[in-house]
Amino acid sequence: MQNNKSTYQKFIEKAHVIIYGTNTIAGRLFDLILLGLILLSVLLVMLETVKDFNQKYHSFIIVCEWIITIFFTIEYILRILTIKRPKNYIFSFYGLIDLISILPMYLSFFISGTSIFAVIRALRLLRLFKILNHPQFNNHSKHLKESLIASKGKIVIFIYFVMISTIIIGSVMYVVEGEENGFTSIPTSIYWAIVTLTTVGYGDISPVTPLGQFIASFVMIMGYGIIAVPTGIISAEFAKNRPIIKESETKVCSNCGSHEHYINAKFCQDCGHAL
Amino acid sequence: MQNNKSTYQKFIEKAHVIIYGTNTIAGRLFDLILLGLILLSVLLVMLETVKDFNQKYHSFIIVCEWIITIFFTIEYILRILTIKRPKNYIFSFYGLIDLISILPMYLSFFISGTSIFAVIRALRLLRLFKILNHPQFNNHSKHLKESLIASKGKIVIFIYFVMISTIIIGSVMYVVEGEENGFTSIPTSIYWAIVTLTTVGYGDISPVTPLGQFIASFVMIMGYGIIAVPTGIISAEFAKNRPIIKESETKVCSNCGSHEHYINAKFCQDCGHAL
Amino acid sequence: MQNNKSTYQKFIEKAHVIIYGTNTIAGRLFDLILLGLILLSVLLVMLETVKDFNQKYHSFIIVCEWIITIFFTIEYILRILTIKRPKNYIFSFYGLIDLISILPMYLSFFISGTSIFAVIRALRLLRLFKILNHPQFNNHSKHLKESLIASKGKIVIFIYFVMISTIIIGSVMYVVEGEENGFTSIPTSIYWAIVTLTTVGYGDISPVTPLGQFIASFVMIMGYGIIAVPTGIISAEFAKNRPIIKESETKVCSNCGSHEHYINAKFCQDCGHAL
Amino acid sequence: MQNNKSTYQKFIEKAHVIIYGTNTIAGRLFDLILLGLILLSVLLVMLETVKDFNQKYHSFIIVCEWIITIFFTIEYILRILTIKRPKNYIFSFYGLIDLISILPMYLSFFISGTSIFAVIRALRLLRLFKILNHPQFNNHSKHLKESLIASKGKIVIFIYFVMISTIIIGSVMYVVEGEENGFTSIPTSIYWAIVTLTTVGYGDISPVTPLGQFIASFVMIMGYGIIAVPTGIISAEFAKNRPIIKESETKVCSNCGSHEHYINAKFCQDCGHAL
Repeated sequence: MQNNKSTYQKFIEKAHVIIYGTNTIAGRLFDLILLGLILLSVLLVMLETVKDFNQKYHSFIIVCEWIITIFFTIEYILRILTIKRPKNYIFSFYGLIDLISILPMYLSFFISGTSIFAVIRALRLLRLFKILNHPQFNNHSKHLKESLIASKGKIVIFIYFVMISTIIIGSVMYVVEGEENGFTSIPTSIYWAIVTLTTVGYGDISPVTPLGQFIASFVMIMGYGIIAVPTGIISAEFAKNRPIIKESETKVCSNCGSHEHYINAKFCQDCGHAL
Repeated sequence: MQNNKSTYQKFIEKAHVIIYGTNTIAGRLFDLILLGLILLSVLLVMLETVKDFNQKYHSFIIVCEWIITIFFTIEYILRILTIKRPKNYIFSFYGLIDLISILPMYLSFFISGTSIFAVIRALRLLRLFKILNHPQFNNHSKHLKESLIASKGKIVIFIYFVMISTIIIGSVMYVVEGEENGFTSIPTSIYWAIVTLTTVGYGDISPVTPLGQFIASFVMIMGYGIIAVPTGIISAEFAKNRPIIKESETKVCSNCGSHEHYINAKFCQDCGHAL
Repeated sequence: MQNNKSTYQKFIEKAHVIIYGTNTIAGRLFDLILLGLILLSVLLVMLETVKDFNQKYHSFIIVCEWIITIFFTIEYILRILTIKRPKNYIFSFYGLIDLISILPMYLSFFISGTSIFAVIRALRLLRLFKILNHPQFNNHSKHLKESLIASKGKIVIFIYFVMISTIIIGSVMYVVEGEENGFTSIPTSIYWAIVTLTTVGYGDISPVTPLGQFIASFVMIMGYGIIAVPTGIISAEFAKNRPIIKESETKVCSNCGSHEHYINAKFCQDCGHAL
Repeated sequence: MQNNKSTYQKFIEKAHVIIYGTNTIAGRLFDLILLGLILLSVLLVMLETVKDFNQKYHSFIIVCEWIITIFFTIEYILRILTIKRPKNYIFSFYGLIDLISILPMYLSFFISGTSIFAVIRALRLLRLFKILNHPQFNNHSKHLKESLIASKGKIVIFIYFVMISTIIIGSVMYVVEGEENGFTSIPTSIYWAIVTLTTVGYGDISPVTPLGQFIASFVMIMGYGIIAVPTGIISAEFAKNRPIIKESETKVCSNCGSHEHYINAKFCQDCGHAL
């Protein structure tokens, strides 16, 4: 029965292992080449916008981009062909990104300038997390993710407060400083308030009047406390989500089964049995 | 007796449910419309200050603002009429904000330019917290609030120290850099010190002399440690206020089902049953 | 014998109570007036450097400053006279600040311009901590102080590393960017490195060449991690130094004396006795 | 036998004690002088780049640098001669730095301008950690190191995400703001994105269009949350790595004096004696 398989079927099976698998050498190599091409592709789109570079190597960049795009297109088609339920892949997060990654180049035939959106391929770099399947790495990833999700509720409330604050602060500064000092409108003043509260501080707009500088000082010191809030939330979440004593650092008593002994404990703290 | 109620009484009762309640569909809808109108109103005041936009749509903005203001006025009056103890509402935090939100527009009849203060309506957005009555959300809110209140004492001491520091640093920089380098007065220099210590760093004033840059470097590295203090305070508070006992470390009572016992508890803390 | 006391002795005793004590009404009032005068005095020195203000009120400021200086001088002499061991006070932290606070004004007779150093009086504001003797406040103060002292060792090592890093980064940027882009010397480049690593970012000096911007990006992302280190150190210290479960939140078993029960525990977790 | 040692051997032995040892007075003195010379040497290279200073003292600086370089060369040769396994030293971290520290000066004979790389000597300042051999200091050092190493995995994942984010944000801003507003290419825009996300905010490039400012505001508030992540990771690691058991919560064994037993331990973990 196995021998009855058509050449096509055999090809599809092999392609599936190479494209979706990470355990065979061919599969791993494919993933690495893919990641390298994604990186190269993103670099090319980026360099295309650098004038000096583009003038010198324009045709070279274009050719490379098309080669990579065609490779990605073939890869996309193969991914659909070699999977059992194509719909699951097509409408998955990675599937959509894979599609969006190749569209801009083809669109650039009809609308010039769309090739720049090929930079969206950068999102394909997230695929690294699929390729790296090391347990310790996954643990880190999971812990990061869980902590951030657990913090989400408080962070949203916090940002809502910050937004209301910036509206009030921005309006006050618009009235105090006025258009002649760069605070040309309330939205611009709110932009300034965000730049200040987040301690970015471009300096494109900065208070000039004494009263404005006084209020700004107040806002900055307030921002001190404010920047501490999300940090506090996330720190607490990180500290909570992880086991305080790692398993590898504790001993279990073979006599009574009690655990959580220090790694250099010599006797069980519950029954006195030698560890 | 119920039937004897006047139409007015019935109306007031119904209005009370709609305005103050959040459990009926009508009440929920009212809250959502109210929140939308507040947002729209704040946006309008903001856009009024954007020159290009204001020139094109001036009359449209004014009409909208008046419609919303009249709606808010009716809502304010109804809130007073439909509550049992109007004074409690009028002098409550939300009551005062509701009043201040409608005043600027009426004041603009007498004093031109006051309509801008209608931006204070942004504070009405805090009402969202009354509308969202979800238990998990309230938990987050409460935890945030408690942690910040618990941190208050230390934060005040900390800010007092920072203020004294900025006075000393500002004065030193005024002497070192002098008026020709932008440090025109001690208050301005203090403003610079705050801009620097909070790591905002506009760059509108920055040290020019080697000695000034040396002192500034010192201040910035100091600011490193300083910014860590409020973060540390609030982080510790967040970590403390939440139960640090993980599920895997707690026991559940087989008798009453209560959980969160210490891992080495031998009896249930709720029913006294042996664990 | 008590009656034999000379008027001078009685005066000294009374003065001691008023100046050093904080429990009598007169003592408390004296402290408050003193703090107010210190604040006023610091404000005056600051305002003296504001040109517009100084031109208008110059003589007024000078007179006020002299009145306050004379008051401080009398206070200083009385503090010495009314204390048992004057040397202890004179060479204490507060004693030295009190002396330095009055010297600049008298020095301004001989050397003009020294009156500005009277701003050192801002340090006298630290006296607030002596006046506020509330136990909860002292607790906060102590906790802050202990946590910072405990963090000191690690912070020093950390700053030493940061300094070596800034020397290397500064030198690299001096070579890469060169004098024509504002990196005029290695010390200036080190100043830039500190401005960047601490995320202050004035923008008075910023990289212009692509390579410089690439290195700067790397430094900034490094600075991300680096700013986290002192925060982490101090957060951990804060979290450690405070009792994780407050005494008021735990119950002690009256039967077996075991403690650390949740506040709403009804039975002892060690002996099952009703709490 | 001891007397049979040649003068050379005696010299080598003595030199070994002085150069590598830190327990004799001579050894300690040597280390201090060495550290002082390293500092002086770094300062000289730095000052050489300051124009005014270099013009005045050029020949003096050069002479000093050569004296120090020759001293360092002799020290390097002696370190090789006086150690049992020279290869271990030569290819160790410190050995390589010691070599690299003296090379630039000799290279400056052949290639002018290389003397500036002598600033790499700053790395020799790390030797301080070898000299300071105090146990408490080593503890701090070790704790810092372990916490940072433990955080490494999560920090790398985090930076990978940040890099993908900056590519996307940078590209969007390049399209939105365009070359006329300073976003001359995608790499430049990515540089801007990093400057903004890390809250450095030079202001050399800043958004001008309303849409650009809106996106920038969004990025900054995102940066708020983002800066909290590495802080949270490292804080949690610091808190975890240190013993969280307070003295008041531990028992001391009356038999062997070992401490740090859990409060409810019943037997000593070191000698098995009943507590």
